[in-house]
Amino acid sequence: MLRRMKVRAAVAYEPSRPLVVEEVELEGPKAGEVLVQLKATGICHTDDFTLSGADPEGLFPVILGHEGAGVVVDVGAGVTSLSVGDHVIPLYTPECRECKSCLSRKTNLCTAIRATQGKGVMPDGTSRFSMRVGGKPIHHYMGCSTFANYTVMPAIALAKIRPDAPFEKVCYVGCGVTTGIGAVIYTAKVEPGASVVVFGLGGIGLNVVQGARIAGADMIVGVDINPAREPLARTLGMTHFVNPKDVQGDLVAHLVELTKGGADYSFECVGNTTLMRQALECCHRGWGVSVVIGVAGSGQEIATRPFQLVTGRVWKGSAFGGARGRSDVPKIVDWYMDKKIDIDSMITHVLPLDRINEGFDLMRAGKSIRTVITYD
Amino acid sequence: MLRRMKVRAAVAYEPSRPLVVEEVELEGPKAGEVLVQLKATGICHTDDFTLSGADPEGLFPVILGHEGAGVVVDVGAGVTSLSVGDHVIPLYTPECRECKSCLSRKTNLCTAIRATQGKGVMPDGTSRFSMRVGGKPIHHYMGCSTFANYTVMPAIALAKIRPDAPFEKVCYVGCGVTTGIGAVIYTAKVEPGASVVVFGLGGIGLNVVQGARIAGADMIVGVDINPAREPLARTLGMTHFVNPKDVQGDLVAHLVELTKGGADYSFECVGNTTLMRQALECCHRGWGVSVVIGVAGSGQEIATRPFQLVTGRVWKGSAFGGARGRSDVPKIVDWYMDKKIDIDSMITHVLPLDRINEGFDLMRAGKSIRTVITYD
Repeated sequence: MLRRMKVRAAVAYEPSRPLVVEEVELEGPKAGEVLVQLKATGICHTDDFTLSGADPEGLFPVILGHEGAGVVVDVGAGVTSLSVGDHVIPLYTPECRECKSCLSRKTNLCTAIRATQGKGVMPDGTSRFSMRVGGKPIHHYMGCSTFANYTVMPAIALAKIRPDAPFEKVCYVGCGVTTGIGAVIYTAKVEPGASVVVFGLGGIGLNVVQGARIAGADMIVGVDINPAREPLARTLGMTHFVNPKDVQGDLVAHLVELTKGGADYSFECVGNTTLMRQALECCHRGWGVSVVIGVAGSGQEIATRPFQLVTGRVWKGSAFGGARGRSDVPKIVDWYMDKKIDIDSMITHVLPLDRINEGFDLMRAGKSIRTVITYD
Repeated sequence: MLRRMKVRAAVAYEPSRPLVVEEVELEGPKAGEVLVQLKATGICHTDDFTLSGADPEGLFPVILGHEGAGVVVDVGAGVTSLSVGDHVIPLYTPECRECKSCLSRKTNLCTAIRATQGKGVMPDGTSRFSMRVGGKPIHHYMGCSTFANYTVMPAIALAKIRPDAPFEKVCYVGCGVTTGIGAVIYTAKVEPGASVVVFGLGGIGLNVVQGARIAGADMIVGVDINPAREPLARTLGMTHFVNPKDVQGDLVAHLVELTKGGADYSFECVGNTTLMRQALECCHRGWGVSVVIGVAGSGQEIATRPFQLVTGRVWKGSAFGGARGRSDVPKIVDWYMDKKIDIDSMITHVLPLDRINEGFDLMRAGKSIRTVITYD
């Protein structure tokens, strides 16, 4: 068992500063933990939210990244679910299959390691990463820290996937793909024939679009102020595009008319509380279900008249698409390999770790859907 | 067919004034309509909400009342679903079984006569009630106007019930009983073993309590600032009583602790937007469902952090308990006759029409659960 090794990582030393790519120290896996060699990782808005300093729970220094894929190279004591050589996707929401939440069959929000979630440490309360000089600990991020070529994770937070799936594509299943498709399939349970409105056609919204397509929705309306998003969204299944800047009058009224009385399902994929309200209120009286996916800024609130609920609209939310990571992520990887879903067209850029800051710049400028960092 | 008759009614001439019991004129049923002789009617908070003038859609003069039971005495042309002599309960939410909503199988909010709902008239746009002197029209109320010993209703807004059910008890099924029990069974679909929190133990909340009991809930927590409500609520199935005035610190935290992590289901039965938020936030992370039943004041809004939804709580609402009136109301009457549910203990006062204003006073003073007016 490896006790300590040097790894290459992109370290975030402080908010709003470029990541520093350098060697750091990584301690080997303890009991119940697994050492993973990462082969690829996506860059997600959530990483940038924390890097910006806007995340009230953000900790520094930290190794960000939570959308990876790699190979098991070592396992700690007692790990029986994974072996050296297994291909895996790190999960920021684990699946222990033993806690009240996992056993409820009603939620994917496993609570096995909740006590340390968001604390930047492993379940035992310590970090495995440290600086080469001085040995000061570096925080983990979302339990994953995929912006390093090796990381240590709890075994319950790794989904074992088929070995023929390309890392540089299926890493995206670790967050964006599953969050979008899962919100449609697991959270909203969209049925064939439904009308769907998607607010925001970024890395999450596009996956909501293709989730709605495979669920058999008849009408899939995309709403985005960026017209450049329209062609790809249509490729993935969008049937109608609405640019709020082009709508005369009230956007909600426009969407209700377009969907002939309101959407059966709507999804907010931006994190804007005004859009969340519009997403609810454009739903059909009597049965429309609106799902909040986007993460709003700290302290922001959503509001509506209770009449919207009393007349039958339902307001819910989705985290990691309602997916149980170890059970559902391998299935979604299979869907990609079977060409049931598309991932390739959303990965607009591939860069080595040394150029990771360029990936953040592309995302902030709205020029990329997903940039993937490859290792080796 | 009767063309015109004198009936005894309690007329609301203007907001915040006592009702005037007097003779008014009633025109006979037109095509698709039915003349009902009312035998009993409950007095509900909604009647008082409109009478107070706070209801922005309130119209005067009007014959209030929407919680009745009676007998069919005449039918208009084309009515085949009902015959003279049938016992019926008026429905403020009709069930046409032909509109998009009825056919959706997803909602009880029939839209067949929506164009005139809230307008104080019959579906043809006119009133059947008028003053004896001068003939000025008097508005209908919620399509029912049960504060008269005869009324005219659309046939699709009458539930046919068994003839042996006592009018002065089952009239309550026309609103409060169905609204409360239905919200549990049809809207929330509470399952055996669930924990339930009920905000407000009035005429609706008490029926939520007994609905939760017959659904098999393990823990039924009632929340009310009126300790006088506790004994009856316990009789109906409440297992725990919480008086917010007696809670040290935060009510939500108290309820989460009491329910060991949060309620599986909560119900707001008051119409207070602060309580609606508390009802949502006391629900269990991952799966708790909160149902808004109470009607908030005009213009008031509900708010919460979207994080509450993203972490798995669901916010919904219920109108008339999600019940399809013609299909479900007869079943609930059967449950009463089979002693599966209790109604008698909630009917605390019975008065003749001449004393209807006393019934309103009792309700405003919190001294009654339900006052029933009997005719004849």
